[in-house]
Amino acid sequence: MAKASEGMTYVPKGKPQRVVKKGEFTFAAVSLDHGHIYGMSSGLIDAGAELKWVYDPDPKKVKAFIERFPQAKKARSEKEVFDDPEVKLVAGAAIASERCALGIRTMEAGKDYFTDKTPLTTLEQLKQAKAAVKKTKKKYMCYYSERLHVESAIFAGYLVEQGAIGKVIQVMGTGPHRIGDPKTRPDWFFIKEKYGGILCDIGSHQIEQFLFYAGCKDAKITYSQIANYNHPKYPELDDFGDAVLVGDNGATHYFRVDWFTPDGLQSWGDGRLLILGTEGFIEQRKYMQLGHKGQGGGHVYLANKKEETYFNVSGKVGYPYFGQLILDCINRTENAMTQDHCFKAVELCVKAQMKAVKIK
Amino acid sequence: MAKASEGMTYVPKGKPQRVVKKGEFTFAAVSLDHGHIYGMSSGLIDAGAELKWVYDPDPKKVKAFIERFPQAKKARSEKEVFDDPEVKLVAGAAIASERCALGIRTMEAGKDYFTDKTPLTTLEQLKQAKAAVKKTKKKYMCYYSERLHVESAIFAGYLVEQGAIGKVIQVMGTGPHRIGDPKTRPDWFFIKEKYGGILCDIGSHQIEQFLFYAGCKDAKITYSQIANYNHPKYPELDDFGDAVLVGDNGATHYFRVDWFTPDGLQSWGDGRLLILGTEGFIEQRKYMQLGHKGQGGGHVYLANKKEETYFNVSGKVGYPYFGQLILDCINRTENAMTQDHCFKAVELCVKAQMKAVKIK
Repeated sequence: MAKASEGMTYVPKGKPQRVVKKGEFTFAAVSLDHGHIYGMSSGLIDAGAELKWVYDPDPKKVKAFIERFPQAKKARSEKEVFDDPEVKLVAGAAIASERCALGIRTMEAGKDYFTDKTPLTTLEQLKQAKAAVKKTKKKYMCYYSERLHVESAIFAGYLVEQGAIGKVIQVMGTGPHRIGDPKTRPDWFFIKEKYGGILCDIGSHQIEQFLFYAGCKDAKITYSQIANYNHPKYPELDDFGDAVLVGDNGATHYFRVDWFTPDGLQSWGDGRLLILGTEGFIEQRKYMQLGHKGQGGGHVYLANKKEETYFNVSGKVGYPYFGQLILDCINRTENAMTQDHCFKAVELCVKAQMKAVKIK
Repeated sequence: MAKASEGMTYVPKGKPQRVVKKGEFTFAAVSLDHGHIYGMSSGLIDAGAELKWVYDPDPKKVKAFIERFPQAKKARSEKEVFDDPEVKLVAGAAIASERCALGIRTMEAGKDYFTDKTPLTTLEQLKQAKAAVKKTKKKYMCYYSERLHVESAIFAGYLVEQGAIGKVIQVMGTGPHRIGDPKTRPDWFFIKEKYGGILCDIGSHQIEQFLFYAGCKDAKITYSQIANYNHPKYPELDDFGDAVLVGDNGATHYFRVDWFTPDGLQSWGDGRLLILGTEGFIEQRKYMQLGHKGQGGGHVYLANKKEETYFNVSGKVGYPYFGQLILDCINRTENAMTQDHCFKAVELCVKAQMKAVKIK
């Protein structure tokens, strides 16, 4: 680790290894509506899982997926996947409003479920998902990728856990995204009932991070707002949203999400996360170093009583979530993420969206 | 300017010069309760003003001030300053709750007033200040130093003015401060009625910046909160505060202020300001480059449709406010800042403090 000589207290945990042997844990990919299915599948495969099936009603999406993952067999139906007792976990990136229904079908078929974020879009769906988890005893897990699949985020978690900044007071996140040419995006992306609204969709990453870093079990939305500032052709698109939350332990959260990453930026978004503690603070520059190209992501800055320290954690920390998730499925543990945490994050992002003042 | 070859559109205005000749504009320093009086006086002197008098009831404060500014004559009373027709402007850094009274006395004496921020602490004071301005036709100006005396802030203003990021959507500011050893601070710093609360005090810098960069004439406080997370010995100290504002043109503002700068940080605070526009964004790192010592302040990052550009503006932009203020006093113009803008910023910061939810 960078500057390890100056801070052995901050040695990160090792890069995770494959947690299972070949053939020990099999999963399938069902519903390829969001590109995150690639990251979800890669993460599981890197941790040792075997990808057996792929299913989507759209043959083009299936073809592209198999080009990347040739080991995946093309299933003729969802049922074919569900009927295979070898499949332990179904990974899905359906249209946001359909993720819950897919999850319930998956769990009813006796398999654990791993969905793209946001895991669902309404409180009614949440109620159904919770009931199905209770009934089936299966898992409804989520790819909150801006923490789980980002090395700076994992490393920052270790720092907080080790007390590097004292007690966490506030988490402040910005999640700007590039919309690119709207014509290349699927229709559902612009229909609020389907994508869920910006605070529910890309806001879900943010709230999950707050609960995690601040160690909250619950929180209140004290204020939230949305706007469509500059996309009149897509009136249901929220191109901006932000919110303030107060956690059950008194820590607070502010996050901002938007679709205004300009074309000249080296990355799809200059995602940052600041964690303020009683004894110091951490800044993550997740994907890039603004104004300096070619430095990639993985930048973590720590300031505390003693010093400022810069850590470049790119390629050094890995993504332990995926291996933990596989082992959780096998052992029925909750080390990767508790079901309560997964559901609380989405409950709050749905509520933030519901309460949001529309300012433009 | 750094990278001028890549963006002549972004050439900043020149470093300001002395705007008056020796003896043309005389001011006095009255009330030295806050160290900002040094920055206020330096700024005026650098722009050509002549410092004639200093007055404070505390001889120690006067002695220290004269060591730095030997040209200042020790006045025996406020009255001696007020009675001198040569004095056109009184600069004051009284205890926050007494700044308005000093301002009214100053204006009644026929002189313009230049106060440290926050310019006042209650809506009743604001009403009195407005009435006195109307009656005396004098100016009640404020040292909102985190914009007016920071080169990155001045330069960012030029970029916004030139349309470098399109229309401003949101301004997001963090103003962390170091409290140091609380015992070395004067008592009034910990008495809310005197310092005004964190949102009114150091929050005033933030709201002023929002109104300026977003071009708002008015705004609403949609949410604000304060806390004392970790200073139980000083129960009236807000060590944390933040707020969301919505401007009259639909632009929004989030700011966070706190007293948690850790001892290991190279500066008293890693002040940042992000300006998000429809066509790009700007980040200011005002005083330091986190994790990299010795780089000083003045860092401005611009990302737009074409490129990312880093500007190091340290020593290159200067502080035009002071010269403009002198000329405004002479010519009765409002180029440095309008009276409405100065009062609107403080009105909003007082309201943010009044509305604030106490979370801890």
